[in-house]
Amino acid sequence: MPLKNLDRLLPGLRWLHGYSAQDAVADLIAGITVGLTVLPQGLAYATLAGLEPQYGLYSAFVGGIVYALLGSCRQVTIGPTALLALMTSRHTGLGLDSGPAYGILLCLISGIIELAMAVLKLGALVDLISLPVTVGFTSATAVIIGTSQLKGLLGLRGGSGSDFINTMRSVWTNLQHVRHGDLTLGLVSITVLLLLRRLKNSKLTQRVNNLRAKQLLSGSIWVIATGRNALVVLISSILAYSQCKTKDSCPFILTGRVKSGLPSIALPKFETSILGKNGTAVTQNFEQMLTELGPSMLILPIIAVLGNVAISKAFGGTGLSPTRELVALSMSNICGAFCSSIPVTGSFSRSAVNHASGVRTPIGGCYTSVLVLLALGLLAPYFQYIPKAALSAVIISAVIFMIEFEVIKPLWRCSRRELLPGAITFVLSLAVGVEIGLLLGVGADVSFLVYRAARPVLNVSKLQTINGLSYILVRPKHSSLYFPAIEWVRSGISKALATHGTAPIVLDCAQVHDFDFTAARGMGSLYKELAKANVPLFLMDAHKDITVILKESTGIDFPTIDCVDDLEFILELTPDYELHLQVTAPLVESRIQQKELSTATELSQLAAKSI
Amino acid sequence: MPLKNLDRLLPGLRWLHGYSAQDAVADLIAGITVGLTVLPQGLAYATLAGLEPQYGLYSAFVGGIVYALLGSCRQVTIGPTALLALMTSRHTGLGLDSGPAYGILLCLISGIIELAMAVLKLGALVDLISLPVTVGFTSATAVIIGTSQLKGLLGLRGGSGSDFINTMRSVWTNLQHVRHGDLTLGLVSITVLLLLRRLKNSKLTQRVNNLRAKQLLSGSIWVIATGRNALVVLISSILAYSQCKTKDSCPFILTGRVKSGLPSIALPKFETSILGKNGTAVTQNFEQMLTELGPSMLILPIIAVLGNVAISKAFGGTGLSPTRELVALSMSNICGAFCSSIPVTGSFSRSAVNHASGVRTPIGGCYTSVLVLLALGLLAPYFQYIPKAALSAVIISAVIFMIEFEVIKPLWRCSRRELLPGAITFVLSLAVGVEIGLLLGVGADVSFLVYRAARPVLNVSKLQTINGLSYILVRPKHSSLYFPAIEWVRSGISKALATHGTAPIVLDCAQVHDFDFTAARGMGSLYKELAKANVPLFLMDAHKDITVILKESTGIDFPTIDCVDDLEFILELTPDYELHLQVTAPLVESRIQQKELSTATELSQLAAKSI
Repeated sequence: MPLKNLDRLLPGLRWLHGYSAQDAVADLIAGITVGLTVLPQGLAYATLAGLEPQYGLYSAFVGGIVYALLGSCRQVTIGPTALLALMTSRHTGLGLDSGPAYGILLCLISGIIELAMAVLKLGALVDLISLPVTVGFTSATAVIIGTSQLKGLLGLRGGSGSDFINTMRSVWTNLQHVRHGDLTLGLVSITVLLLLRRLKNSKLTQRVNNLRAKQLLSGSIWVIATGRNALVVLISSILAYSQCKTKDSCPFILTGRVKSGLPSIALPKFETSILGKNGTAVTQNFEQMLTELGPSMLILPIIAVLGNVAISKAFGGTGLSPTRELVALSMSNICGAFCSSIPVTGSFSRSAVNHASGVRTPIGGCYTSVLVLLALGLLAPYFQYIPKAALSAVIISAVIFMIEFEVIKPLWRCSRRELLPGAITFVLSLAVGVEIGLLLGVGADVSFLVYRAARPVLNVSKLQTINGLSYILVRPKHSSLYFPAIEWVRSGISKALATHGTAPIVLDCAQVHDFDFTAARGMGSLYKELAKANVPLFLMDAHKDITVILKESTGIDFPTIDCVDDLEFILELTPDYELHLQVTAPLVESRIQQKELSTATELSQLAAKSI
Repeated sequence: MPLKNLDRLLPGLRWLHGYSAQDAVADLIAGITVGLTVLPQGLAYATLAGLEPQYGLYSAFVGGIVYALLGSCRQVTIGPTALLALMTSRHTGLGLDSGPAYGILLCLISGIIELAMAVLKLGALVDLISLPVTVGFTSATAVIIGTSQLKGLLGLRGGSGSDFINTMRSVWTNLQHVRHGDLTLGLVSITVLLLLRRLKNSKLTQRVNNLRAKQLLSGSIWVIATGRNALVVLISSILAYSQCKTKDSCPFILTGRVKSGLPSIALPKFETSILGKNGTAVTQNFEQMLTELGPSMLILPIIAVLGNVAISKAFGGTGLSPTRELVALSMSNICGAFCSSIPVTGSFSRSAVNHASGVRTPIGGCYTSVLVLLALGLLAPYFQYIPKAALSAVIISAVIFMIEFEVIKPLWRCSRRELLPGAITFVLSLAVGVEIGLLLGVGADVSFLVYRAARPVLNVSKLQTINGLSYILVRPKHSSLYFPAIEWVRSGISKALATHGTAPIVLDCAQVHDFDFTAARGMGSLYKELAKANVPLFLMDAHKDITVILKESTGIDFPTIDCVDDLEFILELTPDYELHLQVTAPLVESRIQQKELSTATELSQLAAKSI
């Protein structure tokens, strides 16, 4: 069925099934609110990336449409972000026309790498991001975004960076330049926004008895509360328009002029010119461009994916298909590169705005895209009146709720060690950068997994059988014994022998499902060492897979028992000489190989003793 | 007691208690034998490291004394090794006097890093290097070292590089310059060395009947076989001395002048000059030197520790303190750096010679040191006649046995996936560099550990109780459920429900000892999702720790059962209404919270049904 195939190819089409007018209104409001956020952000981030402002808007409309067709998390909005802009800026300062060429090529390559990750099913890498790390990451991102908006809020001039410490320092040293108009507008806007947000959950309607009035009131409250961002921006813009007849009399800093015109749809450039040392143009071919981009071609998409996944996990819960999200992101970048976009990914701040504005389907992104295109084509002159302080207020009051402290309490109570990866992520994200913070947070978590595999809990106890035969029972509480653990097990057994005195060792393998080659070889050495010291080693309840790998790796037939009663039977109390010989033979034989029991006499002595 | 403290500080002093004349003779013989091995090896390894021959001897005497004072395994001999020389050679080709400066600084830094590893108990990091990776690494280094000696063997001029591919290319393009004298000497030397090595294990003495003659013969064989390196070098040097009256008539390339005299005891240089691009001297300050050494500063000590641990494990068993061995190794490097030593570690070949020579205490190393010092003082003028081809032969016939193929067969038979990390290490070590090869090999191994934790085997089966109640039993065969695994478990349960139809889910936790916060939260979401679909979820045989972390993390009291019979009791067949209510209450209550069972009616219906 072609229609079904189309659905599979463009899973976003399912949003259209039963898409009601109410959904459309909600999406429209959210889309416009996000659009009003992405316009100034896009301009700012393009400047941060070292490019002309319109490239920010060129990057802001493809993602919305592509994600609506391919994505599955309604809140995610894909577009330019401060972090990716910063990473792009490393390659845009080479002069002449090379800036956009490098930015757009990097966008294309990021998309291709992301597609490769999707094809190779590397989307499952997101499982490596634990909840504490996610919380640390989102909280740190929220703090960074919030502080990056302080300048706008305080009326300080200069771009907003993505570097927490530099931003704070810059704000601190410029405190005397704070403009009262902007600060007042900003604080009032934040207060209004937070109040309107609370209004949504208020019990105001409970006091109204008339059912119709109740519905009307609750409807109005919903519209006002949900559209509060757009409302605040609109009112503050009208205020600015009425106050700012001349530039000097204006009490607010405004967004400023947006250059009109759509980007041309074209292949990214695979050749460009940079400014040479002596002022001449130096042509860079494709290979030279790739060399210039270097490791960014790998690091940028990985950061983009990790960021995007953290966002969709934070908003979308666990029901999402990571591969599908990855395809949506990669296609946003690939398609974007044909519309002069710089690298894009999910934006935490705008996804938060989107969420807070009550978006219902990813179609909201299409409205954002339309708004951006309209802005580029027609509305550009009108956006210049938006006060920066109002936009900062919108962003701050959205991201402030992304800072999560509530997981700390249960973590402290039941799993304190997990606070560490979260804290590492949070602190390093603020101090060094979100990408470093995220990677080292995941690194801390992964190290713990390796530590667990390397240092399994060993239950060691000296026990006696009913007939009084002493033995040392060693029970590894881990499902496998792999290379990093075997030394630990060996030294554990040495310690047990030192503590409890010499006795047969019984290694309980009931819960051990797997050995690897290194561990098997280590068991072989252990067995020989113990044999030298005349300490027999038995595997209890070992799965056949384990005895096979031990035999293949070491050539030793490890004596196995099903339960400790067999131990008595083998070592002491067996009445059947032949059977005894049969069972102990492998053990004794290997001792002979090691020239520890070099004569047959000892074999017969051992046998004779046990009869 | 100060004496006891001194003993603790220098544990080697205890060897002196009851050190008999017999011990001294045994140690002296072993020490001289090792000395005769380390003299040619030291000269050769210094050349391999890209330095003048005497640096090999400078590296060969400090370790013996330091280890005698601090070490605990009598067989271990610390000194220059082919592997460390190879890794040092990376940084000695920068021209002017920078070679020794970099080598000695690297020795100091390695010692400091090893000391830090001892203090921080990081010696256990070597546990992360599995056997296949070790084999891949040592085999690749053996191949690299062997090919690097081809030039000496073939009489080609030019330094020996550490880059396998470049060396091979250079040898290939210079094949027409092969000198027949060197080639002949080299091949003869290798043949003799390998034959003498085999002689040791031969049954030659069995044919002699006279006991005294037998002893004499076997003693001579032992002396010749053990001192074979010194013997070959001595004979080829005499040959060269007799042939090389004038430089032009000499059929061999000779080692050249070896600076005689002891090294000056001095601080390593923290500043040096390298040859700039246009032939001028460029000063390198300490920071630039550290930048040049880069990752070698970390990887070299880890390799050194690995080698040392492998040796002390092979000879000393498990009774050694890894920390103490690490301290002895680190002090050998730190003290060595003050005597112009390049990085040193335990040498497997010389430790074997030491063992075979009947060493009794680590004091044997002191005698080796004295011999090396005597050689530096008295024999150095004669070293210039040693033909390079003979030294190459010594190295090649030493490293050829480091190439191990025998592990491939058991690995192929019982654990094929482990061939991958070994192959990665081997191929990348040859193609890119030993450090990269080792790191990525360990990375592959660690990835597998993480994969196992992320994708535990799930046994899923639909079963029935005796009374015909169907349930789905899910048994994770892993000792813990951590963050990367929880999505896998959830999707496994979803698939089970899709395959087997709706039935109560029983998660068998008997082998699961630990949950983390992320997994617990994921279980909470799963529980709620299942409750929405009216599928009850039970934990069977869950440890109290697990129920506590689930309760703390999610606020849900997960219903637990001890065995499946309880399931019948709870769900269907309980005759006791009160008891039933008590057991099912938490389940139903949480459903109510989710507004899935929103009325008390359903509770009573459920209860009534089961009476």
